[in-house]
Amino acid sequence: MKKKVKIATIGGGSSYTPELMEGFIKRYDELPIKEIWLVDVEEGKDKQEIVGKMAQRMWDATPYDVKIHTTLDRKLALKDADFVTTQFRVGQLNARIKDERIPFSYGFLGQETNGAGGMFKAFRTIPVILDIVEDMKALCPKAWLINFANPSGMVTEAIIRYGKWDKVVGLCNVPVMAKMGESETLGVPKEDLIYKFAGVNHFHWHKVANKDGEDITLDLIDKLYEENSGLPKNIFDADFYKEQLIQMKMIPCGYHRYYYRAEEMLKHGLEEYATVGTRAQQVKQIEHELFELYKDPELDYKPKQLEERGGAYYSDAACETIASIYGNKNTEIVVSTKNDGAIPDLPADCVVEVTAYIGAQGARNVAFGELPTAEKGWLQVMKAMELLTIEAAVTGDYATALQAFTINPLIQSGDTAKQVMNELFIAHERYLPRFKAAIDELKTENIVIKDELVREMCAP
Amino acid sequence: MKKKVKIATIGGGSSYTPELMEGFIKRYDELPIKEIWLVDVEEGKDKQEIVGKMAQRMWDATPYDVKIHTTLDRKLALKDADFVTTQFRVGQLNARIKDERIPFSYGFLGQETNGAGGMFKAFRTIPVILDIVEDMKALCPKAWLINFANPSGMVTEAIIRYGKWDKVVGLCNVPVMAKMGESETLGVPKEDLIYKFAGVNHFHWHKVANKDGEDITLDLIDKLYEENSGLPKNIFDADFYKEQLIQMKMIPCGYHRYYYRAEEMLKHGLEEYATVGTRAQQVKQIEHELFELYKDPELDYKPKQLEERGGAYYSDAACETIASIYGNKNTEIVVSTKNDGAIPDLPADCVVEVTAYIGAQGARNVAFGELPTAEKGWLQVMKAMELLTIEAAVTGDYATALQAFTINPLIQSGDTAKQVMNELFIAHERYLPRFKAAIDELKTENIVIKDELVREMCAP
Amino acid sequence: MKKKVKIATIGGGSSYTPELMEGFIKRYDELPIKEIWLVDVEEGKDKQEIVGKMAQRMWDATPYDVKIHTTLDRKLALKDADFVTTQFRVGQLNARIKDERIPFSYGFLGQETNGAGGMFKAFRTIPVILDIVEDMKALCPKAWLINFANPSGMVTEAIIRYGKWDKVVGLCNVPVMAKMGESETLGVPKEDLIYKFAGVNHFHWHKVANKDGEDITLDLIDKLYEENSGLPKNIFDADFYKEQLIQMKMIPCGYHRYYYRAEEMLKHGLEEYATVGTRAQQVKQIEHELFELYKDPELDYKPKQLEERGGAYYSDAACETIASIYGNKNTEIVVSTKNDGAIPDLPADCVVEVTAYIGAQGARNVAFGELPTAEKGWLQVMKAMELLTIEAAVTGDYATALQAFTINPLIQSGDTAKQVMNELFIAHERYLPRFKAAIDELKTENIVIKDELVREMCAP
Amino acid sequence: MKKKVKIATIGGGSSYTPELMEGFIKRYDELPIKEIWLVDVEEGKDKQEIVGKMAQRMWDATPYDVKIHTTLDRKLALKDADFVTTQFRVGQLNARIKDERIPFSYGFLGQETNGAGGMFKAFRTIPVILDIVEDMKALCPKAWLINFANPSGMVTEAIIRYGKWDKVVGLCNVPVMAKMGESETLGVPKEDLIYKFAGVNHFHWHKVANKDGEDITLDLIDKLYEENSGLPKNIFDADFYKEQLIQMKMIPCGYHRYYYRAEEMLKHGLEEYATVGTRAQQVKQIEHELFELYKDPELDYKPKQLEERGGAYYSDAACETIASIYGNKNTEIVVSTKNDGAIPDLPADCVVEVTAYIGAQGARNVAFGELPTAEKGWLQVMKAMELLTIEAAVTGDYATALQAFTINPLIQSGDTAKQVMNELFIAHERYLPRFKAAIDELKTENIVIKDELVREMCAP
Repeated sequence: MKKKVKIATIGGGSSYTPELMEGFIKRYDELPIKEIWLVDVEEGKDKQEIVGKMAQRMWDATPYDVKIHTTLDRKLALKDADFVTTQFRVGQLNARIKDERIPFSYGFLGQETNGAGGMFKAFRTIPVILDIVEDMKALCPKAWLINFANPSGMVTEAIIRYGKWDKVVGLCNVPVMAKMGESETLGVPKEDLIYKFAGVNHFHWHKVANKDGEDITLDLIDKLYEENSGLPKNIFDADFYKEQLIQMKMIPCGYHRYYYRAEEMLKHGLEEYATVGTRAQQVKQIEHELFELYKDPELDYKPKQLEERGGAYYSDAACETIASIYGNKNTEIVVSTKNDGAIPDLPADCVVEVTAYIGAQGARNVAFGELPTAEKGWLQVMKAMELLTIEAAVTGDYATALQAFTINPLIQSGDTAKQVMNELFIAHERYLPRFKAAIDELKTENIVIKDELVREMCAP
Repeated sequence: MKKKVKIATIGGGSSYTPELMEGFIKRYDELPIKEIWLVDVEEGKDKQEIVGKMAQRMWDATPYDVKIHTTLDRKLALKDADFVTTQFRVGQLNARIKDERIPFSYGFLGQETNGAGGMFKAFRTIPVILDIVEDMKALCPKAWLINFANPSGMVTEAIIRYGKWDKVVGLCNVPVMAKMGESETLGVPKEDLIYKFAGVNHFHWHKVANKDGEDITLDLIDKLYEENSGLPKNIFDADFYKEQLIQMKMIPCGYHRYYYRAEEMLKHGLEEYATVGTRAQQVKQIEHELFELYKDPELDYKPKQLEERGGAYYSDAACETIASIYGNKNTEIVVSTKNDGAIPDLPADCVVEVTAYIGAQGARNVAFGELPTAEKGWLQVMKAMELLTIEAAVTGDYATALQAFTINPLIQSGDTAKQVMNELFIAHERYLPRFKAAIDELKTENIVIKDELVREMCAP
Repeated sequence: MKKKVKIATIGGGSSYTPELMEGFIKRYDELPIKEIWLVDVEEGKDKQEIVGKMAQRMWDATPYDVKIHTTLDRKLALKDADFVTTQFRVGQLNARIKDERIPFSYGFLGQETNGAGGMFKAFRTIPVILDIVEDMKALCPKAWLINFANPSGMVTEAIIRYGKWDKVVGLCNVPVMAKMGESETLGVPKEDLIYKFAGVNHFHWHKVANKDGEDITLDLIDKLYEENSGLPKNIFDADFYKEQLIQMKMIPCGYHRYYYRAEEMLKHGLEEYATVGTRAQQVKQIEHELFELYKDPELDYKPKQLEERGGAYYSDAACETIASIYGNKNTEIVVSTKNDGAIPDLPADCVVEVTAYIGAQGARNVAFGELPTAEKGWLQVMKAMELLTIEAAVTGDYATALQAFTINPLIQSGDTAKQVMNELFIAHERYLPRFKAAIDELKTENIVIKDELVREMCAP
Repeated sequence: MKKKVKIATIGGGSSYTPELMEGFIKRYDELPIKEIWLVDVEEGKDKQEIVGKMAQRMWDATPYDVKIHTTLDRKLALKDADFVTTQFRVGQLNARIKDERIPFSYGFLGQETNGAGGMFKAFRTIPVILDIVEDMKALCPKAWLINFANPSGMVTEAIIRYGKWDKVVGLCNVPVMAKMGESETLGVPKEDLIYKFAGVNHFHWHKVANKDGEDITLDLIDKLYEENSGLPKNIFDADFYKEQLIQMKMIPCGYHRYYYRAEEMLKHGLEEYATVGTRAQQVKQIEHELFELYKDPELDYKPKQLEERGGAYYSDAACETIASIYGNKNTEIVVSTKNDGAIPDLPADCVVEVTAYIGAQGARNVAFGELPTAEKGWLQVMKAMELLTIEAAVTGDYATALQAFTINPLIQSGDTAKQVMNELFIAHERYLPRFKAAIDELKTENIVIKDELVREMCAP
């Protein structure tokens, strides 16, 4: 019989932790966990303590004997771990506030995954994940890394390409939510729908068939224009152009609104920026409320409010992935993984997000076949943006970052874009050690951050 | 509830039919069949009558109400069929005898799937399968075509490329047998092994992992050199060079012996040719005995002797494929299917043989990733040979056939190869209507068939 | 000895015709022309008469006996032609005015080659060029088609891909001007510089080496930031970011400003729109003045003012191409041509703009090798935009046009983009017969053209 | 003005040296040489002395002041060289005798370039050329390496792939001879034919057009079957099958006879082996006679007998290449060079043999476009064989060598092939230091070399 499992969760102080616990509890029979180590940095210590206690309460309310450890010592947590999950956020939510507000202050989208904000999130996160991988090589060389640190696709690609670590699966809840929503839209149980996804993280398309194997994507498109489409809570709901969807005979993911309805998404973002604050600010408020709840010594289950946080079904994806690897279950999950030809329009060695069967060897990607002309072009330019962003994150090269900014479809090139990039460098200096030389040079130019709130956050 | 299933089996008079019945009977609960139509040509009428009665007896011995029809009218059989299976042999076993004996008479391998013999089998079979596909478009446009007509990969590619029919899965029992044999060799249940296959029909490699996901291919190689490897009965058992297998970190299929041990395989074939007769002659004898058994009005189960025929586990592959499509079971099966990137070293639109999950949409190929240098080169040259053979079969062009012969690694180019090709054209004239012009021209050259037996078979 | 040459020039009434004549006159010794047929449509008749007489005067001032014919009958002009050149503009300059003003009226770039304007130019031009190709198949099947009709790359691709006509070379004067300008910048004769270009029309990069073969691209970049760069007169001169050029180690073409400095290019265009009028309006004025000059019965040489028109060096490219094909000269010219692998990052069968040696077989492309990450991504997305635009032009499919608009990096997707596209369809209705169904449907929506000038031009 | 040129010729004692001198003398005006350094190993010292004196006499008979140096110190020769040419043969002709005789003694082709012999030539040569490249990095980092050491394509690929040295052009006289012969066959001056070659060294095809650009390949095929085809003296002249050439619409190179007429080529080789000795033995005799001539102190020009040696036109290719680089002449030459997409069916980073324009930056490859199915397959398998051979040469790995042997179309796999390979390892031990471990293990098996002559040559 297999030995019991040790989980290490990096970014243990995340508000998502209770959802993760719920997922593990639900699957205890097939995934017999012995201990879960939550690890965070100094800044996350208090939150980790709160959520760690809450997590222990959740387990204590079950018949299972699982011990939650909280620590700031990553090496301790990683030692002999079987699975390492990552949900950390370098610089916490304040960093995301900067990611979003600086672009908005110039009328640009801050978009925290594939936009300017997401690129800086990659710059901050990738060096940290590469350090984690080095620790894993030493401390738990047989462990699997289950990444949900965003931007999940780029982080996963960095782990494989630069970290030379293949035992990784990158996750995202967007595909899960699409499936849930569409099942409801169609009035057909999820199990009776056949899905095939292809793309990169937050930028993929899918086809749907019924259980007789008949493609019903066009029917679904029809239905979607009658009803609301299973869109994540954190994306404003501008409609896709129906004729465009019919032309591609596929369903784009929610984030495609930033590309297919750029004007409206920008307008909406700027309105929020001017009124209720950016998404990060809203999340910060939600998180504050969540932690207030978590402090309640009676609370021993995942509170409903967590769902509003936008990460619903993370547990489904993450815990199911771990259980599938552990038990070689071959569950079908959409993951970020080495392409291996699944999307023949992209190099075999890059990371894509596709339907895969998850088992003891990780992801077995379903070959999607060639994409239509438009989607092929979109995917190729997005992969170029990702590769340049990752390369800049690793090398700390300013010009490579500028090339990545310039090719990013969400960013209008020119002096404003450069100013936005420069302010982001200045604002995130602390978390960008690899860009030290570039930032030092920028600092000689006396760049003033335009957004007042961020300027204050960056004040010495 | 889904309607009950109609199966049409082309080449119904095959000795394999009882095995197919057994497979269907075993799966009746998940695949509720109503009627099975066996269809054959005039030459197979008697055998079809015998085997049809035997098939009916097999069903009558079960609690299920399934009716076996036998007919010579293909259109009748295809009308409204749900699944069409093909196990026909254009020209019957006599054609295979010619395929094998003509090459051997000049010291060449006749090899009935990828060698000179297999190429002529493709020339005979492809025009017939394309006719069947045209009938299906008219009579059962929603049906699935489950092909085991050999050469299974080339026939499947012709169906997709020239027939423009995508609802097809090509089958072969070689991968099943490898899995069975290796499970025994390793002393590990088949369910606890993880397989990944890539290649083309009768020319593929695979990797094996244990249920913890650890690649154990090298361990298996070690074990294989202690024991006998799960090789189909119809292939002489020359050992692969162990160092070669270690270099590729994969297990070749049994047919690879023709490529990795060409000298010994040829020698063995020539010995059989000179003594017991070629494989086809042996099969003819076995078949004769099988039909004697089938005539027994008491026999209502698959006789053991059928296993010696070499097709063991066909039913497992074929019936399981049909049941998986019908019930959207996502069973893992190795099939011939459109590449779609699963092997990035070959074009996305060609047919490959890979591990796939079979469901209501047919095969969902597992992306294998890039092959090592040697295997990539082998695969590319074999695919070129296949494409040229298929093109020649469709166009009837002599020079294209010559190009296919020349590039075939099992054939030494030159005047003898050309003579072998020419004799095969003459000997198979009746079944090669598309090559009529070329054969007419050859006939002006007074080509004399060297092998006495074949010469007699071809006598007017 | 080869027979004397017949040239047919479609769009004969173009103001460029005298420059073409000058180019032919200069090369008469190597390209012995007998007759030049200018052909235009009814709307261009007057201009063609003027420029035709002027062209005859130019030849009459030489020792050569060359006859200029002017006609409105294309078939007459094409009959037995040796070379066909195209410089026509479907809808004349008024169409370009619409192409530019409609987008600008909504704050979008009209950009007449790769932007919204250029896409509609493609929609208008491609069906006409495909008709010309059909005429050529019947009337001059051995002729070469030398295309300068813009967008030159897309038109050339349509000729090859949909017209199935391979004897075509697409031309553009941008590379010529880059070479001229850089030669001056470096103070090195053009002959002593070694160039390698790769990209698509109006979207390419190049490398430069000195005559010892040493790459001096980085030196040139340094020099360019001291001086003015060889930019076509019709592009506003915003500087590229130097660090970006150093990163790519290549020189972008002038049109790359629209992509690397989108903000400034848009601002400049909007300023012109609000003051002096768009480029097309300026050109219309220049053309008016040119034709006044051409009317002068004494004028028998190309007037200097033609250079301001922006097409300088067209003759160098066009006449040199024709002379090189005629005389198998293997001259090095940058042309739009079937890729054939020259840019391995794009499919072998699409059209690219690369350095080529031009001889009797047309272009022999110089293989450029793989592009760096950023430029590869840009090129792939631009090729997707081109292919979608061409497909829409051929099929008249509205949704394909929308997909092309959406992927175009110069267009921000959303309702405004759709409005711009719709207005362009309405405004160009007369020249878009293939889009009839789509435009008829749009007309039911009572779309009102915002730009006053265009609205008046479209009034019945 | 450019400084005068220093040439270093490695393998200076080669009988080809006088031809090289003739080539340089003919081009002195455009390639002003100051000094030529011949360098050889101890075993070639005497021959180098003879040929060095002869070379000096050749120059002394001209008005040019060029000094020939002979040395055994490679570093001295390389120091500040402008061009390095390689014509060395590791192990001298005796090694080639072994390469040929060992395979023939088992009824296999020894074929000294792409067959078993050629693979061992690669094993011996590649480590030496990589050492030379290391010396060049230190002593003449701006020099160009002009390689004619065979197998020229594999050696060139090793230089680029493993030596990381891009300033290299690989040469072969086969394409030159094809052009000469076909010009004669057609009765058309070479200058009036347009050629396009694609393939790898000793394995390429070409198309021909007349000066009007019309493809005349099919006409040429017709003519070739009336006359003798421009085949190098060292290849037995078996006819290609005409229908095969018509199918491919290309002309194969002479060495393709080994692939398209394997039977006859083998038969011919075995006859020579049994009677006059292999090609190497014949060459040894010719060389002996040549050196007798070279000793004549009156001889100051290339003797006619050198042409029989098989290397005719080497000078044309080599000296013309050097002059073209030096003078940036853009001469069209067929060379081994990094693909860069010229053959899109092979990876962009591997070495191919294609038509190129040679200038100061080396080769500018002409993009050939996709090959037909058969030729594509052949090329891919040959490139796999080359890559495996090169990898084995660099790593000294026995199993990789076995994989290369197995995939080589000229070698029938099996025990005899393995015996041939093993004997070659034993026979060449002295020149295969990287295979030391493998050879040491083989030596424990007491392998006895079958061919008597070779056995004697290997006796201690």
